[in-house]
Amino acid sequence: MKFTRFEVKGAVHTGVAEGGIFKEIKGDIFGDWEYTGQSFSQDEVKQLAPLVPNQIIGIGANYVSVKSDLPETLPEIPVFFFKPVSSIIGPDEDIIIPEGIEEVKFESELAVVIGREAKNVAESDVLDYVFGYTVGNDVTAPQFFHNDGHWTIGKSFDTFTPLGPVIETDLDPFQVKVEAKLNGSEKQSSSTELMIIPIRKMISYLTNVMTLMPGDVILTGSPVGAEMVRSGDVIECEIKEIGTLRNTFAVARESAKTV
Amino acid sequence: MKFTRFEVKGAVHTGVAEGGIFKEIKGDIFGDWEYTGQSFSQDEVKQLAPLVPNQIIGIGANYVSVKSDLPETLPEIPVFFFKPVSSIIGPDEDIIIPEGIEEVKFESELAVVIGREAKNVAESDVLDYVFGYTVGNDVTAPQFFHNDGHWTIGKSFDTFTPLGPVIETDLDPFQVKVEAKLNGSEKQSSSTELMIIPIRKMISYLTNVMTLMPGDVILTGSPVGAEMVRSGDVIECEIKEIGTLRNTFAVARESAKTV
Repeated sequence: MKFTRFEVKGAVHTGVAEGGIFKEIKGDIFGDWEYTGQSFSQDEVKQLAPLVPNQIIGIGANYVSVKSDLPETLPEIPVFFFKPVSSIIGPDEDIIIPEGIEEVKFESELAVVIGREAKNVAESDVLDYVFGYTVGNDVTAPQFFHNDGHWTIGKSFDTFTPLGPVIETDLDPFQVKVEAKLNGSEKQSSSTELMIIPIRKMISYLTNVMTLMPGDVILTGSPVGAEMVRSGDVIECEIKEIGTLRNTFAVARESAKTV
Repeated sequence: MKFTRFEVKGAVHTGVAEGGIFKEIKGDIFGDWEYTGQSFSQDEVKQLAPLVPNQIIGIGANYVSVKSDLPETLPEIPVFFFKPVSSIIGPDEDIIIPEGIEEVKFESELAVVIGREAKNVAESDVLDYVFGYTVGNDVTAPQFFHNDGHWTIGKSFDTFTPLGPVIETDLDPFQVKVEAKLNGSEKQSSSTELMIIPIRKMISYLTNVMTLMPGDVILTGSPVGAEMVRSGDVIECEIKEIGTLRNTFAVARESAKTV
């Protein structure tokens, strides 16, 4: 099932996308919801990020190029980071390159959406707490990384976390490929089997530190091949079973979103 | 005015504290609210963290010992970090030391509560976006810092961000002292004038990166004197004009909060 948020004539709706039809629902996607009976066609709607996350957690440098490069022992403390919810945008919105720099980096990722409060969850039980999956683009301005390794600012700018197009609840996350096309040409294309810290271990570890909540989004890392890009470039992050998340990079002065 | 959240017989209330009386209010503290007419005495209530933050942003290493140590040029990229909302606890709750370690660090801080959406705000206008101030304890387990400088895990454990006791809306943040007493003896006591990146600059900088939202909490850094502490230690973080935030450190097995 593909959950979606979309705008029709300025009003925001939540719905389920099915064969090009957007069926409106009401209620809590993580709890009780029902169809309202209203539905819209693709050309009536502007798709939005499929949820407003509770919080966004990312993991750094989590893919190898080929399976034989997977390390025998995993890092004791994985590199996790938070991104602010204010950085979320939806499909087809512009990613704004901050003033003072000319390039930023795209990173196509499988994004896990947590559906139930999760604390001290065993690896074998992790998927019971997952609501579904979407595609994320962990846009990054490494020029704003601190010399001492703090990534916060370089990952926190408004528009730096495109999400979408939908949350797919029926997906085997271990059998998908995370792809990215830059201006139509393939830059990233890796199976999630190439993750250094796999999904079950990653989420179990997090729940041993903090209580994850419904609506928490975990960006599971980006395959090799991410590149610096400039204003005018078009990035398509894709997981075929979920959809394509397409955004264009723009400079601040071209955007109405920043002052 | 001192805004507060408190529990009476298991029910959570929002209110205004005035001379030992907790007057219940309803509505949105950042928008429209009104008194319900109901009030409680100090011994009827259990005070909670005075808000559930939208998100929590901290700044690293932001105090000098004496004014003459203030640097002439400020760091180009300050060290900011996020803490998860799941780490919030209120006054008198236990801070749980994670399994596998015996010590954590307390850090008494002035916490700024944002009251209005803030983007690209000039330093001179910053206080127009501030709702009020509370006391925060940025508890930290440096054993979980990543070698490459990522602090996320070491600051993210459940119970690692005590906040309270109230949000004081009438405060001159430039004229207060941030203090901490460990088991009754003074460990931190610095005027906010000793901040390296002062409040106006810090928040203006953040709004040039991201849109701050009502309920965002900014931990403005901790004075020199923070120490490692152990189970059984009692920490009192204090800003006299706001109140005292008292918590006891405990090990995981003594707590009902963790599994």
